[in-house]
Amino acid sequence: MDNRVEEYIRASAGSTLERLLTLCRQPSVSAQGLGIHECAQLVCDMLSELGASVSTTPAPETGYPVIFADFKGRSDRTVLFYDHYDVQPPEPLDLWATPPFEPTERDGRLYGRGVSDDKGSIAVRLAAIEAFMRAGDGLPCNVKYFLEGEEEIGSPHLASVVSEHADWLKADGCIWEGGGVNWQGSPTISLGLKGILYMELVARGPNRDVHSSYAAVVTNPAWRLVWALASIKNPQEEILVPGYYDAVRAPTDLELEALGRIPSLEHEMMESLGLSQFVKGVRGADYERRLQMESTSNIAGIIAGYTGEGAKTILPEEAQVKVDFRLVPDQEPQDLVDKIRAHLDNQGFTDVEIAWWHGEPAGRTNLDHPWVQTVAQAASAGFGKETIIVPSLAGSGPVYLFTHELGLPVSTGPGLNHTDNRMHAPNENIRLEDVTGAVLCAAELLERASQL
Amino acid sequence: MDNRVEEYIRASAGSTLERLLTLCRQPSVSAQGLGIHECAQLVCDMLSELGASVSTTPAPETGYPVIFADFKGRSDRTVLFYDHYDVQPPEPLDLWATPPFEPTERDGRLYGRGVSDDKGSIAVRLAAIEAFMRAGDGLPCNVKYFLEGEEEIGSPHLASVVSEHADWLKADGCIWEGGGVNWQGSPTISLGLKGILYMELVARGPNRDVHSSYAAVVTNPAWRLVWALASIKNPQEEILVPGYYDAVRAPTDLELEALGRIPSLEHEMMESLGLSQFVKGVRGADYERRLQMESTSNIAGIIAGYTGEGAKTILPEEAQVKVDFRLVPDQEPQDLVDKIRAHLDNQGFTDVEIAWWHGEPAGRTNLDHPWVQTVAQAASAGFGKETIIVPSLAGSGPVYLFTHELGLPVSTGPGLNHTDNRMHAPNENIRLEDVTGAVLCAAELLERASQL
Repeated sequence: MDNRVEEYIRASAGSTLERLLTLCRQPSVSAQGLGIHECAQLVCDMLSELGASVSTTPAPETGYPVIFADFKGRSDRTVLFYDHYDVQPPEPLDLWATPPFEPTERDGRLYGRGVSDDKGSIAVRLAAIEAFMRAGDGLPCNVKYFLEGEEEIGSPHLASVVSEHADWLKADGCIWEGGGVNWQGSPTISLGLKGILYMELVARGPNRDVHSSYAAVVTNPAWRLVWALASIKNPQEEILVPGYYDAVRAPTDLELEALGRIPSLEHEMMESLGLSQFVKGVRGADYERRLQMESTSNIAGIIAGYTGEGAKTILPEEAQVKVDFRLVPDQEPQDLVDKIRAHLDNQGFTDVEIAWWHGEPAGRTNLDHPWVQTVAQAASAGFGKETIIVPSLAGSGPVYLFTHELGLPVSTGPGLNHTDNRMHAPNENIRLEDVTGAVLCAAELLERASQL
Repeated sequence: MDNRVEEYIRASAGSTLERLLTLCRQPSVSAQGLGIHECAQLVCDMLSELGASVSTTPAPETGYPVIFADFKGRSDRTVLFYDHYDVQPPEPLDLWATPPFEPTERDGRLYGRGVSDDKGSIAVRLAAIEAFMRAGDGLPCNVKYFLEGEEEIGSPHLASVVSEHADWLKADGCIWEGGGVNWQGSPTISLGLKGILYMELVARGPNRDVHSSYAAVVTNPAWRLVWALASIKNPQEEILVPGYYDAVRAPTDLELEALGRIPSLEHEMMESLGLSQFVKGVRGADYERRLQMESTSNIAGIIAGYTGEGAKTILPEEAQVKVDFRLVPDQEPQDLVDKIRAHLDNQGFTDVEIAWWHGEPAGRTNLDHPWVQTVAQAASAGFGKETIIVPSLAGSGPVYLFTHELGLPVSTGPGLNHTDNRMHAPNENIRLEDVTGAVLCAAELLERASQL
């Protein structure tokens, strides 16, 4: 990389931090409608100041602005950054050591809401762009910067925004929010997110709770739901809905190898959760494989009847269960809903209603895509340690819009998320020692992207 | 029956009612500790006034008095009355048309808490005793009157009281609270109550709720509980615990005949509950047989995880279910708990804990016992209509203490409970037209008991 750029980055950690402080002092809590427009304006100003051509589109209904910023570079390659400028609510406030919107340095860390998720990523990327602009010969490639303000409320309008702006969003590769550094300081990038199918099943009985002596003659909706659930997954953790696994894309050899190279946190996790073993006793690569690559069915909540202290003898009028299925490529939510409905009907559970559902498919970029090596090498170069590649996170998110709908290779980017970052929780923080490495990563990435 | 006694009864409906009003104006809510001692004193005074030798024993711990009253009669036969002077809480008060403890006549009914359950029975029995004392030659048989003040809180001390006073409680037959008149005005008596086994099952997972993406590797306690429950009863309503039905006493031919003669309320029940059919489509005698004679397993309540509006993606730390089993003779709660525990263990659910349980066996008097015909004939004579004999109620109660422990034949007595009496609910009521019939029944019973 251009030595002048690298020197500029190493010399300007302070101004990177200053920009992050400015962003974090501006609350932008989408769930509470707090400071969203002010924060969007702040980000637009920062982008314009660095020479971007910036436009915004209010998201339908909420009107939380979507920001589109264009930076022209020296090559015809284009990197798309996806970030969000909204943050999680800061509550519970009394658990913060310092106020969430007054970012504060302490013991080598910066504490504040959004420092890691996701304003840290914004500051890092802007710092890399600034370095090329101020110290080098301009950006080595085009950068399209796409930011939304609704990520923390589930990106309700992202699908329609992506669909309407598919042309603008064309790029050679996409960086999805921040990546991180693990507890050993190794940069970590991930190439996908699971999808999700969330549904509520309801069984209805008599039109009111009745005395449980009537259980002899009145069908109990809680039992109906229990039997329906037991028909969906067995104690061997096998989902019994015919065709449920049909669309599952098998892990590639490259992915299996990558799983084997992940320094797993399974032991720490087991201890932290007070467990004596994981499902089916999995360890190591098998643990990572289940977590990243397997489709799950989870009871998130179930309720019926009397749930207070002691005994009450009723037969409940209704039973409800919330089930989430974490999907892997290439399972489709609507297809699975159809299969679950057909399965319930075939098993005699026509009375068990799918009251509502929502879902999104998984998105995962193949490990053999050149973009993956580009990002991984940039991260290794920036942090001076080999990058750990995580084929998929265990969680869900709308990354499929970028992988499926736009056909983009996507990776989380080098970033400031470290193992103890407390995202979404009180005392969210970054380590100050990670800042320069992360900005170097971003710069390395733009440099390498120009040679794609 | 002695004409003078009958005339006295027909002439004194007013004073019977007056006694009932006095009893009902005195609150005696055991669950709230309201007026219990005052009401016990009132009942003792009424018993003494009629010539009984009365003693009371405070129940252990609560000190709610148990009343023992002895009336000597002309024969050596003895009838034991079991009643309770406590009542259900009156709440919700705003649903009462007139105040619960200001009993009020309206449209041929008397409204107030306790008028039916169970102060009506007390008033009826005292009226019959009074008639023999004042208008006849004294009681035709001995009467032992046993009253407790904890029935509405589950009779927690009844077992020990019965055990300590087994000698005093010896009798030729026992009348268990009030009987009733059905919607056609036919007297109805019942010969038993089911037992109950109530338990809470708990499955524990991680030491806190975790993000549901971990469902791939962390065992979900709600699924464990669902599978355990599904192993206990199948959708054909068969309880699968080995040996569960071993001790079930088969209905006798007499009982089956009696079931066939019951004018069933099944259609009204179905309509009232908004159901299109009962379990297995049972009707008529089959409906009554299930309700009265079959052992059930009911989910009274189940809870785990997030049960609010919308979606939350967690894997819950714990799942709890409350299950009640209604027992029939000769199932024993402890024996069933042992069998359920063994079954869960054998099915691999050693992790599903029986957190607590309580239970009592069923009690049922054989239809061929002479006592049954004595009570039935008294009821028919009193109301001038043939008595309907119900082999067992569907509900549970500690009648086994009298049938099992004391070896007594037990029947509910002729009484004031009509179909729309709203026991335990607002606007509890009796029909004034039933009073004289019920007192005549009680008198007929004492008369006939002397000839046993």
